[in-house]
Amino acid sequence: MGIDELSPHDIGLVLDAAEATSSASVRSSGAEKRGAALRGRTVINLFLEASTRTRTSFELAGKRLGADVVNIGGDTSSVTKGETLLDTVKTLEAMRTDVIVLRHSASGAAHFVAARTRASIVNAGDGAHEHPTQALLDALTLRNEKGRLEGLVVAICGDIVHSRVARSNALLLGKMGAEVRLCGPRTMMPSVPGALGKTVRAFGRLEDAVRGADAVMMLRIQKERLEGATIATLREYSRFFGLGPRVLDLAKPDAIVMHPGPVQRGVELDSLVADGPKSVILDQVAAGVAVRMAVLELVSRARDEASSNVAAKAVS
Amino acid sequence: MGIDELSPHDIGLVLDAAEATSSASVRSSGAEKRGAALRGRTVINLFLEASTRTRTSFELAGKRLGADVVNIGGDTSSVTKGETLLDTVKTLEAMRTDVIVLRHSASGAAHFVAARTRASIVNAGDGAHEHPTQALLDALTLRNEKGRLEGLVVAICGDIVHSRVARSNALLLGKMGAEVRLCGPRTMMPSVPGALGKTVRAFGRLEDAVRGADAVMMLRIQKERLEGATIATLREYSRFFGLGPRVLDLAKPDAIVMHPGPVQRGVELDSLVADGPKSVILDQVAAGVAVRMAVLELVSRARDEASSNVAAKAVS
Amino acid sequence: MGIDELSPHDIGLVLDAAEATSSASVRSSGAEKRGAALRGRTVINLFLEASTRTRTSFELAGKRLGADVVNIGGDTSSVTKGETLLDTVKTLEAMRTDVIVLRHSASGAAHFVAARTRASIVNAGDGAHEHPTQALLDALTLRNEKGRLEGLVVAICGDIVHSRVARSNALLLGKMGAEVRLCGPRTMMPSVPGALGKTVRAFGRLEDAVRGADAVMMLRIQKERLEGATIATLREYSRFFGLGPRVLDLAKPDAIVMHPGPVQRGVELDSLVADGPKSVILDQVAAGVAVRMAVLELVSRARDEASSNVAAKAVS
Repeated sequence: MGIDELSPHDIGLVLDAAEATSSASVRSSGAEKRGAALRGRTVINLFLEASTRTRTSFELAGKRLGADVVNIGGDTSSVTKGETLLDTVKTLEAMRTDVIVLRHSASGAAHFVAARTRASIVNAGDGAHEHPTQALLDALTLRNEKGRLEGLVVAICGDIVHSRVARSNALLLGKMGAEVRLCGPRTMMPSVPGALGKTVRAFGRLEDAVRGADAVMMLRIQKERLEGATIATLREYSRFFGLGPRVLDLAKPDAIVMHPGPVQRGVELDSLVADGPKSVILDQVAAGVAVRMAVLELVSRARDEASSNVAAKAVS
Repeated sequence: MGIDELSPHDIGLVLDAAEATSSASVRSSGAEKRGAALRGRTVINLFLEASTRTRTSFELAGKRLGADVVNIGGDTSSVTKGETLLDTVKTLEAMRTDVIVLRHSASGAAHFVAARTRASIVNAGDGAHEHPTQALLDALTLRNEKGRLEGLVVAICGDIVHSRVARSNALLLGKMGAEVRLCGPRTMMPSVPGALGKTVRAFGRLEDAVRGADAVMMLRIQKERLEGATIATLREYSRFFGLGPRVLDLAKPDAIVMHPGPVQRGVELDSLVADGPKSVILDQVAAGVAVRMAVLELVSRARDEASSNVAAKAVS
Repeated sequence: MGIDELSPHDIGLVLDAAEATSSASVRSSGAEKRGAALRGRTVINLFLEASTRTRTSFELAGKRLGADVVNIGGDTSSVTKGETLLDTVKTLEAMRTDVIVLRHSASGAAHFVAARTRASIVNAGDGAHEHPTQALLDALTLRNEKGRLEGLVVAICGDIVHSRVARSNALLLGKMGAEVRLCGPRTMMPSVPGALGKTVRAFGRLEDAVRGADAVMMLRIQKERLEGATIATLREYSRFFGLGPRVLDLAKPDAIVMHPGPVQRGVELDSLVADGPKSVILDQVAAGVAVRMAVLELVSRARDEASSNVAAKAVS
């Protein structure tokens, strides 16, 4: 659903499972790579908002675990033909679907349907609310690089207020004891940054946010989510809030640069930084498949335990 | 192809096979759920008219039987680029496709190509002609609920004349000895209802059609299939032909409410009815996967027998 | 990548492998048809230019070899959202993708990314440059029919200058010692036909190109690739450059007719020819799946050898 309802213990559990998945799949050869943990299960990617990257990551995660994976995409109207989201989900559940991975443009969509269906819902992004697997994969990448999350200083820069990635990351990092610095143009900043966690602070200048940071996380400017002229021009945005080598030098010497993708080179990130030695952008992508495999497996195991509890009760 | 060419015996056979499939997949645990009946076979969903629901149902049916399933969608022109439908189908056949599940906007499309290809064609809806697997899943749902089809009184309400669902259902129910009542605005009624079967009758008022019925089947108003103003407004339609609790009370006390989906709440069905205890809409969805698994398996078995007959002849 | 960099020996190797694949899959029954050569491997069809036919052929090839196959389609802008092609490919590579099958509208796209990624790239058509698997499947079809490629006379007719199919075929046939005759309206002919090979010659009249040929390969007129009025009307095109029975009679008595599909009947090909005894169009389609299975398998084997060499070096 969201990082909001996970405890630090839960988060650690998912990251450990993802790390195990990831190193197992590196060690094993091609022929053994495919697990059987989800053999015979059905995973449906219900993406009512386009996202090739996240959909592909979940699709590969499901297929590598042996699940039957079905994609349903396109805009809401063409998929549902006047049907409510809940009816769409209940229809998929009636087809004996185990897990529905839902991306939706409305904040709270995943919560809403999860409370009303027996299929397990995984939130793959709901409006400007949360994108929990993105925050988990970012945390896994950070932990792999730095050995820990606690005490890290992480700058998150860009369109904070419209970004579910920023929101989920700030929540997760705050819970794990990292210091979070949010930075962006005034029109793109939340009015009460502290609401995201005690360790979250706002910065108006990129230089100040980056200075001494362990990691700099640049967000994609999602033009489609901006209404009206909140930024004068992309050029102006990139001049003040794009990350180039000069600003990056203000961070710690071993700082890393992150981006959820797709990167718009020359807008949020200078190519020298995107392709530089501090960039871990592709490590984030790899961590994404591992985290999603872990999430699908944990969700399935929880389903099995729930249903065997029901069976035990029925017997006794 | 269509219900039209099936005997009552054939229909019983498919329903029995679907029931076996369905109960087998409920009993077995996840790991054993996946059968191997279609392992190594290729099923192509050639949907030249959009339908997420039916396509997903066939896709899951094929994958659960172990087949390689490939989806081809989009509108005819983008798929075929000036190619004829028959050339498209023959191309897929040449790729060693075993079963082609065809949805097409032209009545008779499935018949036309089936007569001219060696691949097995399953009709997933052809224009206003037939949608046989929908009628079979409706029959399975009815039989599960009522224990029989013979003697049942079934009201089918909505845009009868443009509906392949109504047509296939009326044909099937008539063959199985059920009484069929068709009901809808005058502009949406067939001119000779009796052509669909001896037990088929037409009604102008919803109340009359529903009175004493064992089942009420509400059709989706497919705006895209209507040309011009055959209904004044959706509001007017829903006032006279939408099913609410008051009209439903006229049916038998144990009557069930059916809908092929997607439901447009407040148009064909009041939410009180759609979510009420008499609604079996989600059971229909579950029956859909079972029926399609049975159809794919029966079609494959028929192919095997045909080819071993050919082989036997070649040897002798 | 392209036929250009393959030696005659390489080409023979692929054709032999495809022939073995093809006869193996004919012999074995359904249940055994699926190989395990690519079990646990990931193949991504990245089709940034639409092509149902080629995508389906690669998808079936991958699935029949047991690979996890993921399709990414649509136009470039919607897929990449401002991301460069190379970033898209590197993202897929980071998801541990073994093979990326790339179709792109820019000539040289496959080369460009292949030089910069560790994933194996298979060129499924790049602009007006090459479509190597199409030339290989055409060669397999020709060899199956004629027992050899050397010394054959092959006429290729249509929009030569915009056609990657013509280009790849001319290169391949030239390398294998066949005589190639290119024919089309003056505006659709390359300025230096000899650049494609020593045995390549240009013809202005279809009759002259077809006379005495062993095979006539008709190209699809791709309206979308033509800018402005390079042909007066389709009718005029078909009158002078469409193949009918009268012109076909000028070829050798045992000549065959080929077309990469989709065929536009009445434009490039008269139906009498498309459906006639000399047409091998559907054999080409069947050869396509076999060639793509062989290519995916050869590419994977090369990956394994490369990685075991790396491992051996690491150990020694």
